[in-house]
Amino acid sequence: MREFLFPRSVAVVGASPKADTIGGQILIQLLKGFQGRTYAVNPKYRTEKIGGQEVQFYSKVTHLPETPELVVVATPANTVPQVVEEAGQAGARAVVVVSGGFAEVGRRDLEDELINVARKYGVRVLGPNCVGVYNAFNGLDTMFLPAEKAARPPPGPVAFLSQSGAVMTAVLDWAAEEGVGVGIAVNFGNRADVTESDFLQYLDEVEEVKTVALYLEGFRWRGDAARFLASARRMKKPVVVYKAGRGADSTRAAASHTAAMAGSYEMYKALFRQAGVVEVDDLVELFDAAKALAMYKPVKVEKVLVVSSSGGMGVQIVDALNAAGFSVPELPREAQEELRRLLSPIAAVSNPVDLTGGGVDEHFGAALEVGLKYVDAAVVAALIHPPGYSAKTADYILAAYEKWGKPILVVSFGGSPQVKTLEKKLRGRLVVVNTPSRAAKALSAVAFYGSKIYNSGDKRRQKHEAGQGVDSGVSPASGGVAPQ
Amino acid sequence: MREFLFPRSVAVVGASPKADTIGGQILIQLLKGFQGRTYAVNPKYRTEKIGGQEVQFYSKVTHLPETPELVVVATPANTVPQVVEEAGQAGARAVVVVSGGFAEVGRRDLEDELINVARKYGVRVLGPNCVGVYNAFNGLDTMFLPAEKAARPPPGPVAFLSQSGAVMTAVLDWAAEEGVGVGIAVNFGNRADVTESDFLQYLDEVEEVKTVALYLEGFRWRGDAARFLASARRMKKPVVVYKAGRGADSTRAAASHTAAMAGSYEMYKALFRQAGVVEVDDLVELFDAAKALAMYKPVKVEKVLVVSSSGGMGVQIVDALNAAGFSVPELPREAQEELRRLLSPIAAVSNPVDLTGGGVDEHFGAALEVGLKYVDAAVVAALIHPPGYSAKTADYILAAYEKWGKPILVVSFGGSPQVKTLEKKLRGRLVVVNTPSRAAKALSAVAFYGSKIYNSGDKRRQKHEAGQGVDSGVSPASGGVAPQ
Repeated sequence: MREFLFPRSVAVVGASPKADTIGGQILIQLLKGFQGRTYAVNPKYRTEKIGGQEVQFYSKVTHLPETPELVVVATPANTVPQVVEEAGQAGARAVVVVSGGFAEVGRRDLEDELINVARKYGVRVLGPNCVGVYNAFNGLDTMFLPAEKAARPPPGPVAFLSQSGAVMTAVLDWAAEEGVGVGIAVNFGNRADVTESDFLQYLDEVEEVKTVALYLEGFRWRGDAARFLASARRMKKPVVVYKAGRGADSTRAAASHTAAMAGSYEMYKALFRQAGVVEVDDLVELFDAAKALAMYKPVKVEKVLVVSSSGGMGVQIVDALNAAGFSVPELPREAQEELRRLLSPIAAVSNPVDLTGGGVDEHFGAALEVGLKYVDAAVVAALIHPPGYSAKTADYILAAYEKWGKPILVVSFGGSPQVKTLEKKLRGRLVVVNTPSRAAKALSAVAFYGSKIYNSGDKRRQKHEAGQGVDSGVSPASGGVAPQ
Repeated sequence: MREFLFPRSVAVVGASPKADTIGGQILIQLLKGFQGRTYAVNPKYRTEKIGGQEVQFYSKVTHLPETPELVVVATPANTVPQVVEEAGQAGARAVVVVSGGFAEVGRRDLEDELINVARKYGVRVLGPNCVGVYNAFNGLDTMFLPAEKAARPPPGPVAFLSQSGAVMTAVLDWAAEEGVGVGIAVNFGNRADVTESDFLQYLDEVEEVKTVALYLEGFRWRGDAARFLASARRMKKPVVVYKAGRGADSTRAAASHTAAMAGSYEMYKALFRQAGVVEVDDLVELFDAAKALAMYKPVKVEKVLVVSSSGGMGVQIVDALNAAGFSVPELPREAQEELRRLLSPIAAVSNPVDLTGGGVDEHFGAALEVGLKYVDAAVVAALIHPPGYSAKTADYILAAYEKWGKPILVVSFGGSPQVKTLEKKLRGRLVVVNTPSRAAKALSAVAFYGSKIYNSGDKRRQKHEAGQGVDSGVSPASGGVAPQ
């Protein structure tokens, strides 16, 4: 599996000097950013000037000066089995088939042919009909879209596995804008060979990755669910999943879209629970949760401190936390007395702590440093519009985070230069969102994972951590709750 | 009430040439943008140069060359009753007291004194302890914050009434960034005299306003609930409300924050239902719903068309619509056949319509123009990352909207220049959001209001529209469900 994400050399079959072709876009992207060796394969060209450099084209994969660790195929569908044959002959172990025109248009026969050829040579295939892989750490990028159409996010600890190519592209574009570090992303397309389970296992060993976010429409093959259960339970890293296709109307649609085995949503829910993965309800929550799990140490969370420069926003956060099952207990008397000395005379010091519009940046730090002692986590509404506040608030919040190491999530609302500076300082260190409910849900993911890790009831996890492997009532091999 | 939002002249008492004072900020803001006459009142100054213009300072409101229609007070709390006295003597009818230092710090006595003076002269008071009013249509702006700290939104059809000043400021800053047209905003602060009910009634007559969004923490006085019920039921325009302070922990906080009568959240819920207002669950939903109600004609919505360039996103939208109680029915055979001719060969034409990554801009138009005939509204996932799509997709969506006049909501996800261009073209005409659930909830607001208007079961509304006034089982005068 390493070759799909960290190959030392990549061959692009169907490469082209023309930027408006798929093979051309992939080649340009790799030449620009990929840190390994890139080879162009297309019998139509000899040498071409691309982006200022001379690029030699080879007529076949078997003619390359070395065995490419990864072969990316962007040729017409009916030529793909032959290309895979040649990749196999050349000794390649991993092929990404970007080309469409297989099961998704009724050519299941061509897809079977492709897979049979691959099996013959022991080649693993990602796709067909996919946008492939994105790796911010080494510049591997098979998405055939210029940055003007789809931005790429910076390197970061979240890996994203997506059953939909369009969703993967849109998510990366959004993540780039929001500054969410999605270091690795993979789209499976028709998912004819390699699946999410293969990547889950592999990503568990990739040091750069701290959390895996999975967008799933539905399993395709009998046995997929069992494999998923086995892989997910073995994971040392947190996995967050968003499953689309839940109701009757959408199950009908998903079936036509990816030829997915639909199964009832309840079966998937049960499977996720058994697998110990965090389940969320949309793409935004998927990344909020993934970021939170990548950033914060897993902890049990019951009691939460709320600090706000706006009583109104504090109240909203308390509502959201209560709704998510957290408590926002009053601080003990000694803490309240200390805060009474440190904060504005009109501040509310019980919890939620309301610094009021009459406070200053330092008060955020004081409230957090005093209050975090008595709780498991904090949610801060950093509305810095009143005169005494500035983007420096971020520094005080970060200092308190350094001191206590407990999760602090920040709700920020606004768009002025000052607010943007604040958010920029915090992002990358803490989860920053624009509604109380997003903060509460991200914290729920941390709490879910934290209690899974620490809960003495979870024997399976403890045993696993002690090196005794998976052992539970449901045998993954027996098929578990696989959809029928 | 007109004087609070559309005064011809404004006096700022406590005005200053110094930008770092509250009176100074308000004066600078008014001199820069207010279309009426602005007077500076402060005995400490004679004439001062502010932003290039000579500004004359008056020592008292009674010394002004005319009666100011609105007086804004930013002097120390203990001087405010005297300032209101002078405003009354000068014949002013409306006073905004920005100054804090009243009931919120335990000086209920000073607040009572202020209100008693005002009553003596028939002066209405907004505040004290508030950020006052913002009117994008005439530049009236008493928020004491420079644009660098808090941006102001463009003129638009949504009026925002906020019980919290910090929330109002943050919301306007956010609305400016998102391009949400919040033309008018009002913060009540301590809410000692003028309340949301007064403004609801007045805003119903203001032509520029199409919808009122209300952020409420809790009523303060006995009788507030009954007044709200009466005002809201009389409204010809839609009202959307977000009530914070719902659980036990937050009710405790809200009580300390605004001295609000908490009451149970269930009582508020019942009141909103009786009042026929749309209730939502956070600030983002508040503005999604308000925008939708301002933009779309009220219609009954049951069946919804989903059009997407990504099957995956289409499925997510169907899930969200199903969860909100809408149906996404298959299109009739003749429509499917027509779409089969107009769209890509691999498009899904039943509903959700999946244009696939192989489509082009025109396909969005074709799918909407054909499909909207059979449904009440549409939600479109305009993911324009695949090669055949561009920001021109927006033009085709807007053309279909022109043709059918039925609500079209757009889900857009990404941050590239192309995506931003698309969103810019659509905003101001259609609701554009980044998650399926936001779209479904905004559509729910339209459906709620639409069925309230058209549902034959709603006798009260029909009678009212026929000019027969309010008549229902619960008499507003009897107090309705007023919190105890």
